[in-house]
Formats: sequence, C-alpha cells, structure tokens
Amino acid sequence: MALRAALRSKCGLSGLLSQWSSCSSHGRVCVSPVLVAQLRNNSTSPKIKVDFDQSTGVAVMHMQSPPVNSLSLDFLTELCISVEKLEMDKRCRGLIITSSQPKVFSAGLDIMEMYGKSPEHCGEFWRAVQEMWLKLYSSNMVTIAAINGSSPAGGCLMALTCDYRIMADNPRYGIGLNETQLGIVAPFWFKDTMMNTVGQRVTEMALQLGLLYKPSEALTIGLVDQLVPEDQVLTTATQNMTKWLAIPDHARQITKSMMRKQTIDKLTSNREVDIQYFVNFITKDSIQKSLGMYMEMLKKRRA
Amino acid sequence: MALRAALRSKCGLSGLLSQWSSCSSHGRVCVSPVLVAQLRNNSTSPKIKVDFDQSTGVAVMHMQSPPVNSLSLDFLTELCISVEKLEMDKRCRGLIITSSQPKVFSAGLDIMEMYGKSPEHCGEFWRAVQEMWLKLYSSNMVTIAAINGSSPAGGCLMALTCDYRIMADNPRYGIGLNETQLGIVAPFWFKDTMMNTVGQRVTEMALQLGLLYKPSEALTIGLVDQLVPEDQVLTTATQNMTKWLAIPDHARQITKSMMRKQTIDKLTSNREVDIQYFVNFITKDSIQKSLGMYMEMLKKRRA
Amino acid sequence: MALRAALRSKCGLSGLLSQWSSCSSHGRVCVSPVLVAQLRNNSTSPKIKVDFDQSTGVAVMHMQSPPVNSLSLDFLTELCISVEKLEMDKRCRGLIITSSQPKVFSAGLDIMEMYGKSPEHCGEFWRAVQEMWLKLYSSNMVTIAAINGSSPAGGCLMALTCDYRIMADNPRYGIGLNETQLGIVAPFWFKDTMMNTVGQRVTEMALQLGLLYKPSEALTIGLVDQLVPEDQVLTTATQNMTKWLAIPDHARQITKSMMRKQTIDKLTSNREVDIQYFVNFITKDSIQKSLGMYMEMLKKRRA
Repeated sequence: MALRAALRSKCGLSGLLSQWSSCSSHGRVCVSPVLVAQLRNNSTSPKIKVDFDQSTGVAVMHMQSPPVNSLSLDFLTELCISVEKLEMDKRCRGLIITSSQPKVFSAGLDIMEMYGKSPEHCGEFWRAVQEMWLKLYSSNMVTIAAINGSSPAGGCLMALTCDYRIMADNPRYGIGLNETQLGIVAPFWFKDTMMNTVGQRVTEMALQLGLLYKPSEALTIGLVDQLVPEDQVLTTATQNMTKWLAIPDHARQITKSMMRKQTIDKLTSNREVDIQYFVNFITKDSIQKSLGMYMEMLKKRRA
Repeated sequence: MALRAALRSKCGLSGLLSQWSSCSSHGRVCVSPVLVAQLRNNSTSPKIKVDFDQSTGVAVMHMQSPPVNSLSLDFLTELCISVEKLEMDKRCRGLIITSSQPKVFSAGLDIMEMYGKSPEHCGEFWRAVQEMWLKLYSSNMVTIAAINGSSPAGGCLMALTCDYRIMADNPRYGIGLNETQLGIVAPFWFKDTMMNTVGQRVTEMALQLGLLYKPSEALTIGLVDQLVPEDQVLTTATQNMTKWLAIPDHARQITKSMMRKQTIDKLTSNREVDIQYFVNFITKDSIQKSLGMYMEMLKKRRA
Repeated sequence: MALRAALRSKCGLSGLLSQWSSCSSHGRVCVSPVLVAQLRNNSTSPKIKVDFDQSTGVAVMHMQSPPVNSLSLDFLTELCISVEKLEMDKRCRGLIITSSQPKVFSAGLDIMEMYGKSPEHCGEFWRAVQEMWLKLYSSNMVTIAAINGSSPAGGCLMALTCDYRIMADNPRYGIGLNETQLGIVAPFWFKDTMMNTVGQRVTEMALQLGLLYKPSEALTIGLVDQLVPEDQVLTTATQNMTKWLAIPDHARQITKSMMRKQTIDKLTSNREVDIQYFVNFITKDSIQKSLGMYMEMLKKRRA
C-alpha cells in the first residue's frame, strides 16, 4: 500500500530516455521510429499493452509490469511513447488506462531509480516522471482511469491526470499522495493536480499526513468520481467514454486546455529547476537513509 | 433546454451599442439621457421591465423578451442601461433578476447575433455580452437571481453573477454552461465565474461535457443556493434580500469587490483580445456550419 | 458572540511592540531576552500560559485573558513571543491552542485598540495582528486549535491558521469572520485564509453576510474538522496530535510550506500597504462612529 521497489534485473533501456528527451520541446516529444524500434527490441517484454479499437476510437492501455506497475525509467519511457503514438493518431479519441496486475493500479515511482543512483540518473528519471505527467495531463484525448487496485503516490498522480476516475469498490485498496509517510515530499505539480481535483483544504491535510484513502472515502472527497464492483471497472469506463465522445472534439479540447493550461505552464517553465530540486533532495544522505530503511522494511515484510 | 435562436424581425436598435460603448471606460458606461430616450423610442416593446420599490430599496428586473429571453444585442443593451440606472440611483440597494417568460429564465446568447453576421457585428455583440457580465458581476447592489425556469449557457452565466441564486424546484428545468454541446466554447471569464462558484473540478467536468443540471443536482454542487416551489421563487428572493440589506452597504461592497476583483480585472485588461478571439472563432466556416445545423434542428423540432 | 471591547486598565506594555517589531525582518521576530523579561515584569498577570510536555514534544497554549481573550496589543505581543519561543525550541514539535475562559475561544480583535486611538497606535496594533497571523500560519510545528467556545472574527482567524480544528459541539457557540456585521471589513489575508479552508463561494457569502456558524454548520462547510463534547476538546486534540507527529517533520514542514507560501508571501510583501490601508479605514469618522455605537450597545447589554 505504498511505493514498492521492484527488485528486478535492469534491462538495457537505461539511457534511452535522455536521448529521447533531448529532442523534446515544450513538453511534446518527437519520437523517432528508430528509437521506438530500439525500445521494442531491447525490452524483454513490453510493460505496456495497448488495445486500440478503431471502430470506437478508444484505446485501452494495460499496465503490465510485474509485480506492481512501478514507475521505473523503462516503464515511463514505454508509457510516454505509447501515449505519444496514440496522441498523433487522429483516429484515436479516447484513452482508458488500467492495470493487468492483480490488486494494484500502480504502486508509484520505482524507488530503485532513486536509491543509490547517481545525480545524473536521478535527474534523467525525474525528467521522465515530468514527461509522463505532461503528456497525460495535457492530452487531447478523453482520458479515463480504470483504477482496479491500489494507487498510491505516483499511481494516484497518474489517475489524477485523467478526465474521469472509476475505482474498484474494494475497501482493501487505497489511493492518495502518501509521500510524506516515506519522508519524501510530493512536488508542486503533484500538489497542483490534487488541488485541482479536491481543493486546497483537503489537499493540505492529505499531503501533510500522507493519507491513503479507501475507495468510499476517495469518492466522498472527490478524489475519484465513481465506484463499481471490481469486475465492472473496465466496462464502466468504456460505457462512460461514450458520453465524453458525444461532445465535439475541438470544443472539448479547447475547454480542457483552458482548465489545465496554467497548471501545466507552471511546470513547463520550471522543468530544469524542478529536476535540480529533486536531485538535490533525493541524493541527500538523510533521504537516502530513509529510503534504505523503507526498502529493508519491505524486504522483511515479504520474507 | 439550450440556446434558442429568437427568430424575430430586427428592430432599429442595431448600432446603438457601438455608440454607447464608445463612451465607456473601465467597464463603466456613461449612459446619456438622449441615448436612453432614443432606445425607448425605437423599441417596439421593452425587453426589460424594472419595478423599483423605494420603501425597501429593492428593484425587481423582469426579463420579458419572447419567447425565451435570448440575449440579443438589443436585449443586452437594454439590460445594461437598466442596471446602470439602478446602480447610479443611491436609493437602490438590491436587485432581483427574474423572468416573465414561462419555463425559461434566459436561453442564453442569441445565435442569430453570431450566425451569418459580419465580424464587426459579432464583435459588437460580444462587447455587449462582456458589458453585461462586468456590470452584474461588479455590481455594488445586492443581486439575487430568481431563476424561475431553464437557464442554459449565457442564462446560467447571468445567474452566476449574482450574490445568491434561488431556483424553481422543477425537474424539467436545467441550468449549466452547456456550450460544448453546440460545438462552441465558454470563454475564460464564463469559466472563472463558474469556478468561483463550484470549484475547479466540477467546472472542468461540467464545461467539458456541457452539462445541464436539474435543480436538485445544481443545489448539490452549489450551482444554486436554494430550491423552492415555482410560485415562491420571487417571494423567497424578496425575503432573502432583507438579510443581505441588514449588512452595512460599504462593508459588504468592499468585501464583494475584494472577492471578485481579480476575476473582473482579468477581463477588463483583456477585452479587445477576448473580442478578437471570439470573432475569429465564431466566424470560422466549421463553427458557422455547426450553428447552422443546430438552428435547422431547432426549426424541425418546432415544426 | 462578536468582538467585545475588553474594558480594562491599560498596563504598562504599550510601546513595547514597536521596539519589538523594529528588529523583525521578513516576518520573523528576534525576541531579545531583555524584552521578554521586561514583558513579564510589567505584566500584572500573563495572558498566555504554556504547558510544554517534553516527553511528547507537545505544548498546550492556554489563552487566559479575561473576560473573552480579546486580541489586544499586549495579548498579541505575549502570544507572539510564546509562539516564537516554542518555534525555536527544537524539542517542541506540536502546539495546541485553547482557551481557559468559559464559553469563548477568543472574541477577536480588541476594539479598544482601534477606538479613539491615534493612527500610530492603530498601525502598531495592526502590525501585531499581522505578526500573529504570520507566526501561526507559517509555523513549522503541527498546530491544532482546540476551540472550546465561541470564536468570532479574529478568534476564527486564529483557529484558521492551525493545521486542524476541533470544536466543542455546543450549539450556543459560533465561529466565523463576522466583520461586516460591525461595519468593518476582513482584510485580504483573513479572506485568503478562509478561502484556503472552505473555498471561494462559501467565503464570498460568509464574508459578505458576516456569518457566524454553529458548530454543526461549521463542520458541514469545513470551517472546522471535528466536533466533540465540550469536555473532550483538549483530550481529542492531544490524541489527534499523535497522528500528525507520526509523519517525519521535514517532509511535513516542506509540504505545509508549499501549501501556504503563496498566501503568506502576499502579506509579507505588502505589510506596510496593508497597515496604511487599515489605519486610513479605521480612523475614518464614520467607522469610529460605528465602533462607538457598537460599544454602547455592548455596555447596555451588560447592564
């Protein structure tokens, strides 16, 4: 019910994002076909599976990175490329994001990307987290989160970028920006995204206490929009999408952009500062020690 | 339950607003008695009827422009002049806005003012819409909307400018900024006014989907403040006004201005840009085509 | 149920705050031990009693200025010094604010400090009100208001600066920023603090009408977080504090600062303008007359 370090062998994708990011401008990435091919070739198995139904114009993005869809650098790179491809495909009007892993939507940022890593690596990682947020929060597509499991920290952030959130009504699942529980801090754009959803006061208390909400609580405060039985999350998302696609795209897109532009501009005009701030913070001895202790605790809990 | 084009013969008032606007400054209009007389003479029948009770200091403004109080250029001109006169009358402390037409408060902007019209005309019209909003949202009077019918789009905006909203509890009535349903977009100051009332998240979803709310739903999200049976809307507004007038005017006015100043300044410092943006948007072929189709649909529905 | 003038003999503390303020910078005051000693010596009896439990790291600040904990210049000076001392004490992590007076948390600003006083005195007083707000709203400690009585105007503001608000569930108590009822106006930073807690719309109506809310109403709109029987307010605050102290201090403090910085900066960069505005307003003949009438009314009510 929190960030979990995905203890896994690193595949050969490290470093890809930095090349890939270098050709981005104003938060839009130009993904060359070569890089995409490279990614697919190097990857042992894709972490993201996209099912695009041309008849409806709706894509379903399944996150399938065992065990808990941790947002690693590789995962984020793959996710960004997938979203970018759909964004550029005019036939695709709607995107549903869901998980193929049992009991979890996404466990959030992968601690392994920030524990014992070089400042360069941490910076590269953080740029990928920013990119994921920018892509999803500014998407021209209708985006719906089909939250079929727990969704702490970065997982919650991903859900918050969507236009609509449907969650499995299972009291064992939690959702929230619980960073302070680990001794780390949700950055300003996590905070802004939550404030845009549940308002200032709820955000102030939730972020300070690092609260994870049960689905029923999340519905009450407006962190999610709808609860349904676990096996109906995806079908409900699909039904709901129809309502959104009935609206003329251009009018809906201009409206969405008008609502989110200010929040997005705050990050796009401060990306480097934000990366530097993160790197300075996360590489501190005291923070590294906290992360280490947290990972030890997770290991013991598993054993 | 949406914008309705008032299919009516144009009376001789076109062009008045441009003269009238030319002497405005900082959103306050100086209405010369000559212009007002001219307006009254030219008009076949007044679209606004004002009953001012000197004993209570409260004016009731009845919108009476058949069939649905569409916000035409003439209607807006008359409304602005009426509000301005009351604003300058020190005896008038409170304003109640209501409709004399059955089943509708106001159907919003008159499509006829933007369909097949010259850019100049569209710009003139848009300036009048701005003026209406500026006058009502910054009024020193206590303003109460007695919403005795449906109130889509610009009708909803007018209600949102008031200090308090009482709506008839009739489930056949709807209220909301439903512009996207027509393929057009609520401008930023419509959006800001709604956000100031119901918050960012509800506004984001409502504007994207172009939602019209039933009275009970509108009460739940705070789009209106109170529901009463249809025949008690005006009397309840009058009773409620008493509570507001018990507060010393200067303290209430400074407070109101403090709450709304930032939102108002955003438009007053961007009026020309906003007009240009609207004119460019509405005169596009694709948008004109959308409006044409919408009007055809309305005609068929009537027939 | 409003501001009450504490009709009391002035003790010899006047003028202290101006010296004390002169060494402040950027909203942090450097209190010299000499001044503190001077304060203690001059004071007939302390208006603030602090119980600090080193084992828990929690201090309880009892306001004990009869009859109604009016925020006089002396009271504010003492309160600021107490908060500052705790803030500098690394062992102190949490602060609970409560009242030792029956039926009232604090009646708010002391009218005697603004009625018939020189502009210099009014300015000095207002600087102290600012200082209280800045200290409490930006505190690094966890702050909980144990609201065991009525809390109008400045008393409500004090409660709003805290991280969490627990109120006695007694329908005879009221809480709110009711300044307009007296013909005066809550300044922008009172307004901002309330907006950060209950949102724009509720604040707009509450401030215009000068509403005092019963505890149950205050809970509904989010003005307070929890209601408990009167004799359990302090124990509940202590229990609740445990939850807040379980969060690593540095992460919680950075988060709190991130949430409140913008609001705080607005005042710190406008303190002198805000003081001048207040002095100009409060020394107006019409406002002085209003205050005089209000005090006469209070005297009669007592007699």
